[in-house]
Amino acid sequence: MIPNNVLRTWRAGGAAINGWLSIGCPFTAEIMAAQGYDSITIDLQHGLVGYEVATTMLQAMRASGVTPLVRVPWLDPTWIMKALDAGAYGVICPMVNTREDAERLVSYVRYPPVGTRSFGPTRANFSAGADYGREADREMICLAMIETAEAFANLAEIVATPGLDGVYIGPADLTLGLTGRRFPTGFDRVEPELVEAIGTILDTAHQAGIRACLHNGSPAYAAKAIGWGFDLVTVSNDVRLLADAARASVETTRRLTAGAGES
Amino acid sequence: MIPNNVLRTWRAGGAAINGWLSIGCPFTAEIMAAQGYDSITIDLQHGLVGYEVATTMLQAMRASGVTPLVRVPWLDPTWIMKALDAGAYGVICPMVNTREDAERLVSYVRYPPVGTRSFGPTRANFSAGADYGREADREMICLAMIETAEAFANLAEIVATPGLDGVYIGPADLTLGLTGRRFPTGFDRVEPELVEAIGTILDTAHQAGIRACLHNGSPAYAAKAIGWGFDLVTVSNDVRLLADAARASVETTRRLTAGAGES
Amino acid sequence: MIPNNVLRTWRAGGAAINGWLSIGCPFTAEIMAAQGYDSITIDLQHGLVGYEVATTMLQAMRASGVTPLVRVPWLDPTWIMKALDAGAYGVICPMVNTREDAERLVSYVRYPPVGTRSFGPTRANFSAGADYGREADREMICLAMIETAEAFANLAEIVATPGLDGVYIGPADLTLGLTGRRFPTGFDRVEPELVEAIGTILDTAHQAGIRACLHNGSPAYAAKAIGWGFDLVTVSNDVRLLADAARASVETTRRLTAGAGES
Amino acid sequence: MIPNNVLRTWRAGGAAINGWLSIGCPFTAEIMAAQGYDSITIDLQHGLVGYEVATTMLQAMRASGVTPLVRVPWLDPTWIMKALDAGAYGVICPMVNTREDAERLVSYVRYPPVGTRSFGPTRANFSAGADYGREADREMICLAMIETAEAFANLAEIVATPGLDGVYIGPADLTLGLTGRRFPTGFDRVEPELVEAIGTILDTAHQAGIRACLHNGSPAYAAKAIGWGFDLVTVSNDVRLLADAARASVETTRRLTAGAGES
Amino acid sequence: MIPNNVLRTWRAGGAAINGWLSIGCPFTAEIMAAQGYDSITIDLQHGLVGYEVATTMLQAMRASGVTPLVRVPWLDPTWIMKALDAGAYGVICPMVNTREDAERLVSYVRYPPVGTRSFGPTRANFSAGADYGREADREMICLAMIETAEAFANLAEIVATPGLDGVYIGPADLTLGLTGRRFPTGFDRVEPELVEAIGTILDTAHQAGIRACLHNGSPAYAAKAIGWGFDLVTVSNDVRLLADAARASVETTRRLTAGAGES
Amino acid sequence: MIPNNVLRTWRAGGAAINGWLSIGCPFTAEIMAAQGYDSITIDLQHGLVGYEVATTMLQAMRASGVTPLVRVPWLDPTWIMKALDAGAYGVICPMVNTREDAERLVSYVRYPPVGTRSFGPTRANFSAGADYGREADREMICLAMIETAEAFANLAEIVATPGLDGVYIGPADLTLGLTGRRFPTGFDRVEPELVEAIGTILDTAHQAGIRACLHNGSPAYAAKAIGWGFDLVTVSNDVRLLADAARASVETTRRLTAGAGES
Repeated sequence: MIPNNVLRTWRAGGAAINGWLSIGCPFTAEIMAAQGYDSITIDLQHGLVGYEVATTMLQAMRASGVTPLVRVPWLDPTWIMKALDAGAYGVICPMVNTREDAERLVSYVRYPPVGTRSFGPTRANFSAGADYGREADREMICLAMIETAEAFANLAEIVATPGLDGVYIGPADLTLGLTGRRFPTGFDRVEPELVEAIGTILDTAHQAGIRACLHNGSPAYAAKAIGWGFDLVTVSNDVRLLADAARASVETTRRLTAGAGES
Repeated sequence: MIPNNVLRTWRAGGAAINGWLSIGCPFTAEIMAAQGYDSITIDLQHGLVGYEVATTMLQAMRASGVTPLVRVPWLDPTWIMKALDAGAYGVICPMVNTREDAERLVSYVRYPPVGTRSFGPTRANFSAGADYGREADREMICLAMIETAEAFANLAEIVATPGLDGVYIGPADLTLGLTGRRFPTGFDRVEPELVEAIGTILDTAHQAGIRACLHNGSPAYAAKAIGWGFDLVTVSNDVRLLADAARASVETTRRLTAGAGES
Repeated sequence: MIPNNVLRTWRAGGAAINGWLSIGCPFTAEIMAAQGYDSITIDLQHGLVGYEVATTMLQAMRASGVTPLVRVPWLDPTWIMKALDAGAYGVICPMVNTREDAERLVSYVRYPPVGTRSFGPTRANFSAGADYGREADREMICLAMIETAEAFANLAEIVATPGLDGVYIGPADLTLGLTGRRFPTGFDRVEPELVEAIGTILDTAHQAGIRACLHNGSPAYAAKAIGWGFDLVTVSNDVRLLADAARASVETTRRLTAGAGES
Repeated sequence: MIPNNVLRTWRAGGAAINGWLSIGCPFTAEIMAAQGYDSITIDLQHGLVGYEVATTMLQAMRASGVTPLVRVPWLDPTWIMKALDAGAYGVICPMVNTREDAERLVSYVRYPPVGTRSFGPTRANFSAGADYGREADREMICLAMIETAEAFANLAEIVATPGLDGVYIGPADLTLGLTGRRFPTGFDRVEPELVEAIGTILDTAHQAGIRACLHNGSPAYAAKAIGWGFDLVTVSNDVRLLADAARASVETTRRLTAGAGES
Repeated sequence: MIPNNVLRTWRAGGAAINGWLSIGCPFTAEIMAAQGYDSITIDLQHGLVGYEVATTMLQAMRASGVTPLVRVPWLDPTWIMKALDAGAYGVICPMVNTREDAERLVSYVRYPPVGTRSFGPTRANFSAGADYGREADREMICLAMIETAEAFANLAEIVATPGLDGVYIGPADLTLGLTGRRFPTGFDRVEPELVEAIGTILDTAHQAGIRACLHNGSPAYAAKAIGWGFDLVTVSNDVRLLADAARASVETTRRLTAGAGES
Repeated sequence: MIPNNVLRTWRAGGAAINGWLSIGCPFTAEIMAAQGYDSITIDLQHGLVGYEVATTMLQAMRASGVTPLVRVPWLDPTWIMKALDAGAYGVICPMVNTREDAERLVSYVRYPPVGTRSFGPTRANFSAGADYGREADREMICLAMIETAEAFANLAEIVATPGLDGVYIGPADLTLGLTGRRFPTGFDRVEPELVEAIGTILDTAHQAGIRACLHNGSPAYAAKAIGWGFDLVTVSNDVRLLADAARASVETTRRLTAGAGES
């Protein structure tokens, strides 16, 4: 079975750089898969991505060697198991708020007797290897998102869930969850109480022997997060990368020609 | 009928900034349409785009007000007429090599008695306006690509074709066509004989009273082209914008963390 | 942020006329969006419509200015949040049977601290406006379907749910729910006990200060419903409109030619 | 092999009533196929329909027993042969202007030694019958559109083409082709010179022993056309049926409630 | 309403042979539907199949007369009701572990007053018949999968659930559920304790007066299962059929040419 | 640039075994790509495959290392160039009947100054390598189908076309083309005059220094063809492999249970 890059990076003591796909399109996935990420996550929650196009995105990324993950829309066995059967190497699950949530999450990702995942890796048998059924439990990553006040309160219990590989912080939701409408939404938080909360999650996870991952909006913040000890960082997403690059391209052209009075 | 931004910009003495879609996906089209381009061209020739997804891209761009154009794969009435019926406001046609090619192109874009376009603007009736049938001949743009040695030799005859709105230069093909394998492929040519050829096409078009358009690989070159007098410039495409932005994002993150020994 | 037509109509003291899409196709959505409805609902429950095609339908309706709503298949955060992130301006939720159901529904539609919606309006940021994150809670509509005996029994509690904008009556299910197989299925009920039940729901909603909406099978009944005080009426759907119009067209042709013995 | 209803109707001395699909969607096709038409044509020319969705439309219509035809976008062997291999029972070809055009058309529809159709009825083997290869030449219909001044001038030669089953009149293009911009575009022509032209085509076809077919915009005109002797009539299309029915539904509701001051 | 072949076969005292679709593609469905199965199940759980392509598969199978079933991904009303509205004639539900699970399953498949299915058979009205609403409860099959230790422990209670038509055994999951990792995964079990468990489920179901169904990996085992008394047997799936046939074809060609030294 | 397996096999003195995709589906392509073929051809001519799904098939096959080819629907630059830009490593072109046809074919496959292919390998840059533009002319295969009486008559001229890599025989069309309806359609011809014609084509190609390829219906015939000296053999296609395997599976099950009186 093809190994999971993220686990390999972690075992080597490194931090993984993760890409993020919010556009439902196999060609954008294929393009992104060629840019040097260790893993790439298809966002089935907030991305404009449904199950069917996600399967073609997994196919389009396969040749690159990048490890495909998914963020599922909810703690729901349908989406989790369908994504794994289709070849995803791990699940980032939003809104894991309690120990019981975390246990259910782990259960959906592992086969019996450890968990309750149903057996039928229809595409994974081809994409990951014919020994998938035997090896999958070792290679699939299971990450719980900590992004609400409830989750934050239950953090110690959540991180101690057997079988959980790590936590993943979504700063936009965490900000809303911990501080409501006091601050603007967004990533790359600088407010001391949020920075502290992020640090608390990081430390609590590491103390429990599991990994900590952070969603970022810029390389600078992602690099800082690695410096803090985060094990996986996501840097921007395809929507923002494309939109910002296109806008910059238009604005630069207009600016360079503005003096000339052509446009 | 909703007017054509490109024609409006031209009538106002300006140069249009054109976006380019090589990814077949309505959401990338919707994202690009929000970035400030005057027009956006769906590339049905070299883009990974077929007819069906192109129709959803046209729908996704409609609300933005950007003027949608298509580059068709060939001088073929099927593609030209299907794209116009689907709501495109104009056609960039590759490999127009002779006066007869140019006349056929014009003919496919205009209704009788001027041309031979068949009547049935099924979606355009909704997207452009109920008076489309009556007004379309005034609003559709028809651009011939000059990109081969044969076209270059026949340039004077081509630009004089009645009903042709302009020429569009594809520098990669023009380079292959005029100089074979002497230079590397690509846009933004700096070789004197290619710069001169580009200037010749620009001047010949303007002398014939039609427009000249250039495909560029950077804002800097596009701005230079506007300075030379080009009437429409294309700046990069969605594939390159996304790939370059993603790669830069990964590399910056790796570089910023390199000293820290984490990855 | 682009305002919600339905709320605007309500604030102006009017009743909204709502269209209904059961066909999963962006072009039928674009056609319907041009016919003068105030809002149009994509039926993800009984319509032959999945998530992916729904996103292209939302894109195809955007330019029309009609307000897009969705009926979700069930009280399920995945479908509700994915539809809102994709640009829907409100949710009609089937089978809301208890106060707790209604509270969960409201919670899924509003961001913290009011609700539990997760933040990530990937397409809505483009289609509704860049200030979506800040304004969305004010513009999203949240309608609970009252269509079972249990819901009817819990009506007073349901309509008093804070944050619920209104109730929506599905007469076919309500008939099955209240009277089982006694009457044929369908809309536009004339049986006194069903008319009375519909009136009870209308009055109870209004007394609680929220809106009442009715699904209808004909303009005549919809107009009658507006006369009764309903705030939003749905009139037929795309499937029935197309099927009935086509059948009438064939039958008229056959009838007009029947005497002539041709067919 | 399942027989062609249109041929069966013709042999029985009747006129066929044909439906028209301009929406690319298998469910609209399935709905239309249930409304009593003898045949239904997928419009690959002006319809918002590409090859791939057309194949799902053919699948969705198969159970109904209605005979599927296609209008191809142009006299192009690719589209003609791909449509037939996918299970279409005949081709309506636009812009057949000369005897040579008509001969090429016939040639593309029949297998050698009669024509030049390439052998490989991949889906037709399933949908039409395993004996398709042997029987297809007898069941496929081949109709040439007469819709330009050139075609009108060459009419006698065209109708005499061996193997051509009939002509099909597109009144919108014929009006543009014969009279330019003198009259508004559209079907159901009443101008004497156009009515006369239509009659001339009908008579010339019948004198040559082939069929005549007319595209209509209303049952009334279609019935009149059958009275004149047309062998197949098309009555409106799915776009117009849906748009008109929806608009009428909205307007009736608004009109019925207008006096009540609600909206 | 078109009757359910499986019920018809059962009433006639026979065992139904069921095909299995794990590939999301209407053409593979159409091909499989022509091969003589009594019923064919679209696997929405482990198959690479989402809701939208499943609807086109149902359309593509309609003409064949084969009875379409679905395996849903989970005990979830959304998937169950959407599949039935789209024309499926029954549901195989995985992971039914308790009597309460079984009761919920039955409830989702039947209309009130028997169950809680919501009314709106949008496509089924066309594909199954206009009397669908009245007759559907009689024709829909409801099968609970017994595949965990918990389900096995609760078997007697599950099979006694009113309205449940039968149980369906997934041997791969049952093996994991009952014996963990002791045996390799797969179908066609020969281990005595698993053969005994399968026999227990068969007998318990029959004693409760409901049907028993088995998923098999080969015709030989399926035939043996019929001999044991199973009422419905599934024989392999499209993925395995295609993969094995292709591999055999390549290997045979290579073997036959090996001696000749060509390859 | 990733090399072409077929060319590599040929240079090593071997014969390539080619698979054939007539089903438009990325997962069937991914399954087939895992079965050991040297190359796999997507059949855009007779397959139920359009351009868009073909691009997802190319993506799904990429990881396997199998070399992807396409059969285009006709000698048409649009399809040929779009397929190559999307990553196909060669073109099998039907109905090449004259030397001029063959020259046009070669011209569409090679960049200037050798041919007239337009430059823009949008996906090939990712799938084949960033040096595609420079190396592609060396790696793309160009095969002309010899399948009509006219082609057979012009054989010597066709095979001498500079840049043509080989001929490909379609026995079904060749039979119709050379002998009309005298023999049944199909592959694996045994009639002496057809076997002789096939041998003539093989020998003429080899004498001209180019390759000869044959479409077969069985491993036995394919192996025989390799024995005769063919350089590439196609063995059956996905449609036949799936249909035959499924039918055998049903029939075996029925036969094995027939004596038992169950079904």
